[in-house]
Amino acid sequence: MSDDDAKLRSPSGDDPLPKAVVTRLSLYLRELQLAQNGGAATISSGQLGKRLGFTDAQVRKDLSRVRQPGQAGVGYRCRELIAAIKERLGTNLHWPVALIGLGNLGSALLGHRGFQRQGFQVEAAFDIDERKIGKRVRNVIVYPMSKLQEVIAAKGIRLAILTVTPDSAQAVVDQLVAAGIEGILNFVPVTLTLPESVPCVAVDLAIELEHLTYAVVSRGKEAGGDGDADLTEAD
Amino acid sequence: MSDDDAKLRSPSGDDPLPKAVVTRLSLYLRELQLAQNGGAATISSGQLGKRLGFTDAQVRKDLSRVRQPGQAGVGYRCRELIAAIKERLGTNLHWPVALIGLGNLGSALLGHRGFQRQGFQVEAAFDIDERKIGKRVRNVIVYPMSKLQEVIAAKGIRLAILTVTPDSAQAVVDQLVAAGIEGILNFVPVTLTLPESVPCVAVDLAIELEHLTYAVVSRGKEAGGDGDADLTEAD
Repeated sequence: MSDDDAKLRSPSGDDPLPKAVVTRLSLYLRELQLAQNGGAATISSGQLGKRLGFTDAQVRKDLSRVRQPGQAGVGYRCRELIAAIKERLGTNLHWPVALIGLGNLGSALLGHRGFQRQGFQVEAAFDIDERKIGKRVRNVIVYPMSKLQEVIAAKGIRLAILTVTPDSAQAVVDQLVAAGIEGILNFVPVTLTLPESVPCVAVDLAIELEHLTYAVVSRGKEAGGDGDADLTEAD
Repeated sequence: MSDDDAKLRSPSGDDPLPKAVVTRLSLYLRELQLAQNGGAATISSGQLGKRLGFTDAQVRKDLSRVRQPGQAGVGYRCRELIAAIKERLGTNLHWPVALIGLGNLGSALLGHRGFQRQGFQVEAAFDIDERKIGKRVRNVIVYPMSKLQEVIAAKGIRLAILTVTPDSAQAVVDQLVAAGIEGILNFVPVTLTLPESVPCVAVDLAIELEHLTYAVVSRGKEAGGDGDADLTEAD
């Protein structure tokens, strides 16, 4: 058995996944949930790939990285594969979320159905605006920043969504880290300094538009013109 | 001169950039604009790297892919490097944007300052809700879906931001493609079918949170615990 075989035969566990694989696992999860809601009990790697524009081989390679109960000829059982992917991504666990900064984007994210659909629940919101503090926005209580540590501890909050102003972002992050937050989803278009033990995923919506303009201007220069081509591995 | 040298010496042009490079170029652009606003005329690759947590070598390698006027010892002139990156990403061009679907997220994105900061202007909004049609939301007129083709042509709209319901997304995309849209930024958590000539960049906010939970649960298993480690190339 070669080293490569060993790698493929180790279905889960310790080897870190590249970002593109995590994205694809999330996409398989989304499609599996849609298929299950549509009444499907099983799905083949070919069907799953076709829905997402990935090859059969790509799907099988990716799914070899989760504890998956695929059976030749039968395909994957949706329910079991959903559970296996959630376990690999950590979304089988409970992740109470706080949202910091109730501007336009923050308020919209409070009610974002996509979060709830994947089991994320915003348990508390924080703002500096006295007119918002103490109110409920989309059924979530708005606390003052001075209560950050107390509320995070009391509600067992693990993740924070950051939608504050660029000027205040780093100071808020320092408070969040001091309060024991485990990870930050940062929508503020600034680079944050964090300890290595606290991961941060940054979503800069203008950068996403820049990816799009680059895809449009470089159209036809690539082998495939597909905008999500980067999600398909060469091998 | 080896092939590798030739590649590095071709500063711009035709070779397609990997997605991670496009993201890093966008990040350099953001930092350069901040530095320029702070009064800096020049910046070194080391300074730029330090702000973003990238190595000096990484920055120089990335910037060799744009028409950059860096000078040994002096560093890069901010103004010229900003222009060079914008040209490479296509954001030196005018990209009128339409936003389709004025729910919570759509309405918030209409007023998103980050878009304006990078020169993106939403020129028209579309919705099916009669109570919204004809009104101005954040100074953008809301049109009915029946006017899609007409307004896109009249205003020279090139890109669409999609924030409609999952059920209607594909039908709306088909209309956008028929109306000649050049690219789509899709916030709807469904997989869309598009012609290869129309790139689509998908932003699924729940998937971003799944990246974060994965980073938290796999913390300590990676060489570096940094959440943005995927943006740093191994070589």
